[in-house]
Amino acid sequence: MVKLNFKKGDGILPAIAQDFKSGKVLMMAYMNSYAWRLTLQTGEAHYWSRTRGEIWHKGATSGNIQIVKEIIVDCDHDAILLKIKQLGGAACHLGYESCFHNKIDKDGKETITGKKIFDPEKVYKNEFA
Amino acid sequence: MVKLNFKKGDGILPAIAQDFKSGKVLMMAYMNSYAWRLTLQTGEAHYWSRTRGEIWHKGATSGNIQIVKEIIVDCDHDAILLKIKQLGGAACHLGYESCFHNKIDKDGKETITGKKIFDPEKVYKNEFA
Repeated sequence: MVKLNFKKGDGILPAIAQDFKSGKVLMMAYMNSYAWRLTLQTGEAHYWSRTRGEIWHKGATSGNIQIVKEIIVDCDHDAILLKIKQLGGAACHLGYESCFHNKIDKDGKETITGKKIFDPEKVYKNEFA
Repeated sequence: MVKLNFKKGDGILPAIAQDFKSGKVLMMAYMNSYAWRLTLQTGEAHYWSRTRGEIWHKGATSGNIQIVKEIIVDCDHDAILLKIKQLGGAACHLGYESCFHNKIDKDGKETITGKKIFDPEKVYKNEFA
């Protein structure tokens, strides 16, 4: 059984979610050991929400669940890569396919790329997930 | 000029390095605001080494510099995605193409995937970068 170095990240480790087909990086969140265990057990991505201080079953509110196809851990056992199938087509709570949609040029200027898949106001109704 | 939320990560934010052609996730490290500025200014990935407590110009020792092709920031401005060209063909200090080379199955069993591109003992000579 693999042991992750949760101590290194004060109890939480970064987890990257990448589309298992396109290779697009969709989001980055954090897992504590319980979220890690739930992810392994259920085959659906669970994170630790630092903002809300609770386990976050991604998609529980929006239906945009992440089906885990492959899990890869890095050389130091302190970062996690999930290759996932993103239900609903959008990982970002703002409705974009990917949370990584702010392109930065050499001068630090920001341009939004990618298009909205859904309208977050209709999906979340004052909730967040 | 984009403002990153360095406060959210106590001064450092996670940065993912992804091969700009294959889409393979190569490594994850951290940047403080100075590493971020150096990365923008030089077009080469700079990180903050938490272990060594210093700026880490990736590849300075090994020659395995990361040429930045594109920078994308996430919706919350607290995570960075670098699309890079990895000189030397290997991002991992253990000599693998990617730091993410430990595949985890459903039972938590770990299998090393990917092959070594270089022998770290010959490259680093007791150093690390």
